[in-house]
Amino acid sequence: MAQQLVDRRDLDFVLWEQMGLEKILEEKQYKEFNKKTCELILKEARTLAIKEILPTLKPGDEEGVVLENGSVRVPECFHRPFALLKEGEWPNLIMPPEMGGQGAPRALGIAVMEYFMAANWALNCYSTMGNGTAIMIQIFGTDEQKKTYVKKLTSSEWGGTMLLTESDAGSDVGALTTSARRNPDGTYSLTGNKIFITNGEHDLAENIIHPVLARIEGDPPGTTGISIFLVPKFLVNPDGSLGARNDIVCTGVEEKHGIHGSATCSMALGSKGECLGFLLGEERKGMKIMFYMMNDARLNTGLQGLAYASAAYLESLNYARERIQGRDLADFADRGAKSVPIIKHPDVRRNLLRMKAYVSGMRSFFYYAALCGEELGLGNKGDALGEAFFSLLTPIVKEYMAVMGYEVCNQAIQVFGGAGYTRDYLVEQYTRDCRITPIYEGTSGIQAMDFLARKIGAEKGAAFGKLVQEISRTTARAKDFAQLSPLAEKLDSAVARLIDIARIIGKKALSPDFKTAFAHSLPFLHVTGDVIMAWMLLWRAMVSAEKLDKGCHPKDQSFYNGQIKTAEFFIRTELYATLGKMDAIAQGCPAAIDIDDDGFGGL
Amino acid sequence: MAQQLVDRRDLDFVLWEQMGLEKILEEKQYKEFNKKTCELILKEARTLAIKEILPTLKPGDEEGVVLENGSVRVPECFHRPFALLKEGEWPNLIMPPEMGGQGAPRALGIAVMEYFMAANWALNCYSTMGNGTAIMIQIFGTDEQKKTYVKKLTSSEWGGTMLLTESDAGSDVGALTTSARRNPDGTYSLTGNKIFITNGEHDLAENIIHPVLARIEGDPPGTTGISIFLVPKFLVNPDGSLGARNDIVCTGVEEKHGIHGSATCSMALGSKGECLGFLLGEERKGMKIMFYMMNDARLNTGLQGLAYASAAYLESLNYARERIQGRDLADFADRGAKSVPIIKHPDVRRNLLRMKAYVSGMRSFFYYAALCGEELGLGNKGDALGEAFFSLLTPIVKEYMAVMGYEVCNQAIQVFGGAGYTRDYLVEQYTRDCRITPIYEGTSGIQAMDFLARKIGAEKGAAFGKLVQEISRTTARAKDFAQLSPLAEKLDSAVARLIDIARIIGKKALSPDFKTAFAHSLPFLHVTGDVIMAWMLLWRAMVSAEKLDKGCHPKDQSFYNGQIKTAEFFIRTELYATLGKMDAIAQGCPAAIDIDDDGFGGL
Repeated sequence: MAQQLVDRRDLDFVLWEQMGLEKILEEKQYKEFNKKTCELILKEARTLAIKEILPTLKPGDEEGVVLENGSVRVPECFHRPFALLKEGEWPNLIMPPEMGGQGAPRALGIAVMEYFMAANWALNCYSTMGNGTAIMIQIFGTDEQKKTYVKKLTSSEWGGTMLLTESDAGSDVGALTTSARRNPDGTYSLTGNKIFITNGEHDLAENIIHPVLARIEGDPPGTTGISIFLVPKFLVNPDGSLGARNDIVCTGVEEKHGIHGSATCSMALGSKGECLGFLLGEERKGMKIMFYMMNDARLNTGLQGLAYASAAYLESLNYARERIQGRDLADFADRGAKSVPIIKHPDVRRNLLRMKAYVSGMRSFFYYAALCGEELGLGNKGDALGEAFFSLLTPIVKEYMAVMGYEVCNQAIQVFGGAGYTRDYLVEQYTRDCRITPIYEGTSGIQAMDFLARKIGAEKGAAFGKLVQEISRTTARAKDFAQLSPLAEKLDSAVARLIDIARIIGKKALSPDFKTAFAHSLPFLHVTGDVIMAWMLLWRAMVSAEKLDKGCHPKDQSFYNGQIKTAEFFIRTELYATLGKMDAIAQGCPAAIDIDDDGFGGL
Repeated sequence: MAQQLVDRRDLDFVLWEQMGLEKILEEKQYKEFNKKTCELILKEARTLAIKEILPTLKPGDEEGVVLENGSVRVPECFHRPFALLKEGEWPNLIMPPEMGGQGAPRALGIAVMEYFMAANWALNCYSTMGNGTAIMIQIFGTDEQKKTYVKKLTSSEWGGTMLLTESDAGSDVGALTTSARRNPDGTYSLTGNKIFITNGEHDLAENIIHPVLARIEGDPPGTTGISIFLVPKFLVNPDGSLGARNDIVCTGVEEKHGIHGSATCSMALGSKGECLGFLLGEERKGMKIMFYMMNDARLNTGLQGLAYASAAYLESLNYARERIQGRDLADFADRGAKSVPIIKHPDVRRNLLRMKAYVSGMRSFFYYAALCGEELGLGNKGDALGEAFFSLLTPIVKEYMAVMGYEVCNQAIQVFGGAGYTRDYLVEQYTRDCRITPIYEGTSGIQAMDFLARKIGAEKGAAFGKLVQEISRTTARAKDFAQLSPLAEKLDSAVARLIDIARIIGKKALSPDFKTAFAHSLPFLHVTGDVIMAWMLLWRAMVSAEKLDKGCHPKDQSFYNGQIKTAEFFIRTELYATLGKMDAIAQGCPAAIDIDDDGFGGL
């Protein structure tokens, strides 16, 4: 039967054949999980996603959220699946037991999230955002804070948020003006206004715990003066029951391009002078603490891009197999020839295979990156190179998977022709919903600056060096397969060129012409992502070639051959364009910096 | 003051400095138009667009169209500007006097349309679609048909449409099942159902004249058996007054991604057995006749892409000049430094300059192509090479400007960050509205097939050869300018590579591996478009360098220098990526054809 949301066979391939989850399960912290339990959990998640969550996607888009008297109503149909998610303890699946979670391996949690996000990201987000808040509290909170908040957050009884952005402090968080005054009892009184707050207010949880960035009166300007506070919607009594309503209210919800089921709130803190906040960690360490959550949010944004792309690809693939239109090109001259499904048409095949390549490459990359993070453990302690490597991957996951996820959704529309422009199919909504991903949790430009300024040179370039080594390990092994050897060689040469480019742009970033380097930073991030795609696809092809050599079931043959063809397509088509883009970066044209502001026109 | 919709200085540049409209005005058919009258007309159009039409864009999107009892209500706010357009005789500006038009030069008409389309394409389309219908009637109709319909259509008193698509006949028009039966009096009775009919029904015109593709009973299947009929909503009495309501009714309007102000209708013909149609031209010549209108519609779709891109670019540019956020990168270490407008940030500049490059290149290209069409005259008679050249340009205008217009709108969102994802700015709507352009009037895939199968080899390759010659004329002249010489050389080498690629893919299209050629046909069209952009931008830079050499006003200096920087940016950045894409086409990877259908997964 035609599949929806996530390709089951492909997911199994990544988990068990490419990433070797069985070996990870042997680690003792996962002793309650074996392959069979994981498969059962996945099956349940898939059923829940398709039967209960997916049917709320379109109604949630149409109904949207409603703000009335400071309260936000989510789409009515969200309540039932939200309750099922909570009852089934899905949101805390990978949280450690000490945080009330089930301690499942991260890869399993991601697989479950792929289904839930693809089925309805907006709905799922209400139930999972508490985890990010809980993790910060677990690492930086007092024992009392941990006791008060963590388990309520991971269980989705209470919601979590991130209050960073203000109308004049978006990409430049350090410009924020929300202020905190010390009270004699050690609490703080907050005053300010925040915007673009995802799930800032809603009716799915009895309480919402807001981590808020603010500046304590007298602290220095900029990011160094920022502290982070926990601001609960309802104050919590010592016995854990809910107390007074805190002075933090939703004053507006945004009308958006997509994700209409998600409440994007403006929040006013202390408009009555009574907004109580509790310091998390030390004063003026707000940015550092918040980044634990932010990095996680960035990775999740990449996953969001993948989930939409996966669902959009499958919907368009199913359509291409069923929609009859036009004769096969081989029969073009034969006016009597029967019409064929559009999957037979060369341009449709190109489009589908390109989408498949990105979905496959992004899926493998995401699990790979997440497993690198998992190895570091909570708090990322110890392994400096490992940490730098994971940090290097984060902006690529975030930006590249956002942009390419969107590209896949957008091309999926094209498969449907005119029908894709209507609201009859979900690709239309996936495209709108996915458009947020290169914007929030740090725009494309912010990711690119982070990548060039902080990540490429981390550990004296050793993190980037590790990326190169890891790719080379795959290409070396792939050369054992005659069919893959030319692809491996092409990838090697692309990696060599990437090293050149990194050197050129890295050097320029430290020169007087550094602005030109930053004008090329986003394309530089993108070509790095392209090379990683080629790597992931070649890796898949290599695993597949091994299986084919050993002999396998005929159905698996199509799957494995498909992997090889996908790698071939990507490396012999997309990667050539990448090499051209690398040449452009090497050129380092300074025109975007040199042109005077008036030269942009419009005056 | 900040400009909206279309950059005035840039438009003047294209009209008077690049395309030499003054010389065209000297031709005697335009004796009523001189530079001054043209400028007055443009000023009026701009005022109308900004003051009267643009304010209806967002309300039109929000209100959409409503179908009730077979009647479609357009957004209420459309009525006033529609009346103003009609009163001002704007829709028929470039129609020849014998069709009730004012016979203005085409370039002037395009400039006016840029403003109107950018201000509200959906609204404008109601007033201009009649022209396409009128032109077909003027060329192929009987004297009586001309007398009955043409002037009513060009004056926008009556609306026009195109009834091609059916639910099982989209890209494959030849599969249509709408049938026509000959009546004894020479009329025909039509029966069938059409979908995706733009402006199929609305309340802005007292009558609507539908050109309908249908097959006369007994005629052969496929496109050769198709005839075209005029089916008026209201039959027209001999004295020109409206008679009985014809049996053609709107049965539904689509819920769409964008262009909500435009009625996309399902139409039922002859559900009571009483749909009267009048043959246009000869029987079974429907496809040939319809293509006169279709080619025009294709060009207009390119203009639509340009208009959205132009407006979205200007809106984001204005925002980038005003929005203060973050320190200048040169002051990054100075925490006390003032925040700057985001136009100062390198990645924002790159994005803006890239948008500007495409908007500028597309604008020049569109006027160039339209002027090539104008030279041929109505009916395209005589000049076989000129006709083939214009035909070669048509799918590039249609597809490339659709896709790149969308890309510009989409990147304009990025300049706004989070605000771009809300409905507070028009870039959000422009992006949704523009998404239709690579779909209707022939999808990307259809344009690519047309380009490779019919256009590249036309006149034994002479049309393509003419394109190469025209580009070479520009590069030869550009080499006289020291600053432009390296750019001209780079473009020469890109053209040389394009010739290679055309030869490779053209040869493959005639080989047993033709499907692989068609799997690369869309990228092939796109790289051709890229080369044309480089050409247009170099041409602009050359005109600008001439002016700078002669000395000019300081404000003009910024403008002209901006042209040179834009060409430099495009040729030294984007064109490198193009060369990479050409390498991919040369590789001709057959994976998309070779992969078996099951290999796409999802089973």
